[in-house]
Amino acid sequence: MEQRVRVLIDCKDKKGLVYKISKVFYDRDLNIENNREFVDKEHSKFFMRTVVTGNFDTKELKNALKKVIPSEANLQVIEPKIKKIVILATKESHALGDILIRHEAGELDANIEAVIANHNTLEGLVNRFDIPFLNISAEGLSREEHEEKVMEIIDRYSFDYIVLAKYMRILTPKFVKNYDKKIINIHHSFLPAFIGANPYKQAHKRGVKIIGATAHFVTDDLDEGPIIAQDVIPVNHRLEWRDMQKAGRDVEKVVLSRALNLVLNDRVFVNGNRTIIF
Amino acid sequence: MEQRVRVLIDCKDKKGLVYKISKVFYDRDLNIENNREFVDKEHSKFFMRTVVTGNFDTKELKNALKKVIPSEANLQVIEPKIKKIVILATKESHALGDILIRHEAGELDANIEAVIANHNTLEGLVNRFDIPFLNISAEGLSREEHEEKVMEIIDRYSFDYIVLAKYMRILTPKFVKNYDKKIINIHHSFLPAFIGANPYKQAHKRGVKIIGATAHFVTDDLDEGPIIAQDVIPVNHRLEWRDMQKAGRDVEKVVLSRALNLVLNDRVFVNGNRTIIF
Amino acid sequence: MEQRVRVLIDCKDKKGLVYKISKVFYDRDLNIENNREFVDKEHSKFFMRTVVTGNFDTKELKNALKKVIPSEANLQVIEPKIKKIVILATKESHALGDILIRHEAGELDANIEAVIANHNTLEGLVNRFDIPFLNISAEGLSREEHEEKVMEIIDRYSFDYIVLAKYMRILTPKFVKNYDKKIINIHHSFLPAFIGANPYKQAHKRGVKIIGATAHFVTDDLDEGPIIAQDVIPVNHRLEWRDMQKAGRDVEKVVLSRALNLVLNDRVFVNGNRTIIF
Amino acid sequence: MEQRVRVLIDCKDKKGLVYKISKVFYDRDLNIENNREFVDKEHSKFFMRTVVTGNFDTKELKNALKKVIPSEANLQVIEPKIKKIVILATKESHALGDILIRHEAGELDANIEAVIANHNTLEGLVNRFDIPFLNISAEGLSREEHEEKVMEIIDRYSFDYIVLAKYMRILTPKFVKNYDKKIINIHHSFLPAFIGANPYKQAHKRGVKIIGATAHFVTDDLDEGPIIAQDVIPVNHRLEWRDMQKAGRDVEKVVLSRALNLVLNDRVFVNGNRTIIF
Repeated sequence: MEQRVRVLIDCKDKKGLVYKISKVFYDRDLNIENNREFVDKEHSKFFMRTVVTGNFDTKELKNALKKVIPSEANLQVIEPKIKKIVILATKESHALGDILIRHEAGELDANIEAVIANHNTLEGLVNRFDIPFLNISAEGLSREEHEEKVMEIIDRYSFDYIVLAKYMRILTPKFVKNYDKKIINIHHSFLPAFIGANPYKQAHKRGVKIIGATAHFVTDDLDEGPIIAQDVIPVNHRLEWRDMQKAGRDVEKVVLSRALNLVLNDRVFVNGNRTIIF
Repeated sequence: MEQRVRVLIDCKDKKGLVYKISKVFYDRDLNIENNREFVDKEHSKFFMRTVVTGNFDTKELKNALKKVIPSEANLQVIEPKIKKIVILATKESHALGDILIRHEAGELDANIEAVIANHNTLEGLVNRFDIPFLNISAEGLSREEHEEKVMEIIDRYSFDYIVLAKYMRILTPKFVKNYDKKIINIHHSFLPAFIGANPYKQAHKRGVKIIGATAHFVTDDLDEGPIIAQDVIPVNHRLEWRDMQKAGRDVEKVVLSRALNLVLNDRVFVNGNRTIIF
Repeated sequence: MEQRVRVLIDCKDKKGLVYKISKVFYDRDLNIENNREFVDKEHSKFFMRTVVTGNFDTKELKNALKKVIPSEANLQVIEPKIKKIVILATKESHALGDILIRHEAGELDANIEAVIANHNTLEGLVNRFDIPFLNISAEGLSREEHEEKVMEIIDRYSFDYIVLAKYMRILTPKFVKNYDKKIINIHHSFLPAFIGANPYKQAHKRGVKIIGATAHFVTDDLDEGPIIAQDVIPVNHRLEWRDMQKAGRDVEKVVLSRALNLVLNDRVFVNGNRTIIF
Repeated sequence: MEQRVRVLIDCKDKKGLVYKISKVFYDRDLNIENNREFVDKEHSKFFMRTVVTGNFDTKELKNALKKVIPSEANLQVIEPKIKKIVILATKESHALGDILIRHEAGELDANIEAVIANHNTLEGLVNRFDIPFLNISAEGLSREEHEEKVMEIIDRYSFDYIVLAKYMRILTPKFVKNYDKKIINIHHSFLPAFIGANPYKQAHKRGVKIIGATAHFVTDDLDEGPIIAQDVIPVNHRLEWRDMQKAGRDVEKVVLSRALNLVLNDRVFVNGNRTIIF
């Protein structure tokens, strides 16, 4: 029976990798639908994403590939399927709404398991889409206590990624470590400019002529994780910081959805603190 | 009692217009919150948009302004209020969805009176937002017959603008004339490139490296009305036309919403087949 | 002795091409410095650009590759070297000047053999750089007569590409055929918008909010050849067409130089009326 | 005799300013060719740039304006004329070359008085344009000693602005104070990201997906002065930092020339650490 899998490989670079890997495909009479490679020469690392189709046994293919690549290589043979996400939000609806509309249209390669928020502002919107909404208020709780409650809820769901759709709380290292390389955030500035609180106020004060947004994986260092996507728009002296915030929302939502889409399609490799996008 | 109005003037350019108009404001002790002028020298036309606040009688202000500007001038003194729109759509949800989310968040300066579509695909989505959805199928009807039915529905509503949120039907001159300068369309190309059917297919075939979207007022000439807003994104040889279509949706929805917002805030003057955006 | 060549292949797509080609490299113990492939599924065509290094005989490598690819394939094994260009210009200096400055800085992978112009406006500038300048006035000549004279001059030089750096004359089919896929032009609009004369005047009249420039190979159809690079800048109602022209010059020169650079580095495949850029 | 002047006013905002100023123009029967105002509400500051033509005495006009604006206002009545600039450079030719080409074409509203560099790399290029080139080597000198020598040379010239066209030396506060608001710099990053040394290396390390350039006035705080213009280009994982540097040069030169042009046309107001661009 005709199958389609995504083969993802990253490992130390070695002579002959392309030859040996393509031989595995050739010997099994597979079609290469799509193939992208990249060698990070500075760190001598090899990255490959290939989509193959044909009649094959996934396990056997994986074993055959394992034999020709270095033993420490990361190898994934993924059968494309709808992934699962949990969304964290606060009060703003634009990034969440954008994902909801795509989801409704069947244009998001993910199922939204739940939306968890530290306020109830978005409850009405989420309910309109018949998606579970859970309000975990942080009132009267320490950061750790609040997060414990959030994690408890999150862990009820099975999911591939956590999407921070303008979740305006700083995560503890514990939370981040718990969901390593599974958290995608949208930061409302062109990182690394304006790290931290209220980037639009900072941008206005600095008098920049362009503002932007950055989608990135969340790591221990606040706003310092590997960048997946960025975009910008021009601004001018007429915009007060609230106008920038308003204008910036379109960039934020589009950049987050673009990054999410790349991740859901297994197009993103993390390479140290950088990403390879295929 | 403190009031705020938008004063819009367009007329033949004459020496002293700014002086005379600002004198009217000064004599009434009004604050100028915001002021923009533009002179189209080629056609000797003057455009002005001023936001004034203070204690005044709107009628008296209007009369005073009338006395100092040419008799044939277009003068509007507008008290900012939520405008009303009717949306026409077909099957695609991205542009409509973007407007619905903004509406829900209270970020659209308009109330959506109804969504009218020639298919029922979007009924579920619109119903989620408790907005009237009317499906006027074109099946078995001539273009004129279908439009008669659409106009009959539209005319039940009071509205300021009709928004074509990816309404995939060509309008007759009668329809366009009926709602002159009240129809805003999003065209899925960087006009005037790729006028007409399936711009993404055309763009792909032509091998362009950038695709775009154009929001414009609808006039008799298909895709030839005054442009309000445009934006673009880069593409490359890897994108098939359906990928371009998918990527283009983000541009379409953002450009349409941006244009709609400008229009709702009375920031757009039509100057022949061009627009002035303040 | 360590060598470096660029291997360019385009042919009908077939199963096993990557395997067979990479086997040729592997068997000769070559390093793959850089590798890019693309399959145009619609037309079932395969494109590959690989940079390999190692100790090898270029002729032998080429023969080995020939044996594993379809007989009708285009195969090039190119030793990177400074290419040669002839520039055609008219009166405007921005595109020409940009190339001259890069050339002077050693940042252009080409030697400028000569600048030929139908006016003498640019003579002073070109002379400053000790590059041959030839003025072939079109005064009193038919298009054909003028072109004959231009071709006669061009043919005195050995060159890889002809660069039209704002050469404001329409070329005859004879000229184009003579230098097939060797002529690179910069068109001062975002093609296919505003084909033909004075695109900025057209753009101004149409009231677009974005203007652009397009670098493309010249084919028989005026402004219809395969696009290599495009870029745009925002404009507004304040710009008269001459302001657009002035603002557009920066886009024109940058886009032309970017395209030229791609071509000089053998990164551009022509695929029907489209290009593949690696 | 018909005259044209640029009137620049910035002062504390007050009711009636537009009326009173336009009355001065009206009473003298002047034409307003172009008019732009902006009120910074946060700091209650008023900015105006008006181009007027007509028969008038500049001194009398200035005095009349002085009477209607606050006593502490900055008022300039400027007769458009070619300004003078001195350029400081180091080794890279792209930004300098771009200015030279514009200068040669008569498209720069400035005369280049001299190019001063701390290396002799650019001597050949500058000499081609018959512009004085002065090499002040920093070898064996302290920062202060070197700057003394540079200032000594600069002060031989009369000039309106100093342009740092990739001058790779840090200026002392003394130098900056000496030429307050007269120094324009191009920084090779999208400020405030990547302040300091080797922004491209920083950008590469951080894995950004967009790089940029910033033209700004130089103030005491390194890379912290008021921003005049910014622009960006997309990059990806394939670019090493030297490729980013190469790609970034086009942005740098275009942004610097754009900013320079704005300044030369008196279109830039400094408002605290921000700029107003008319």
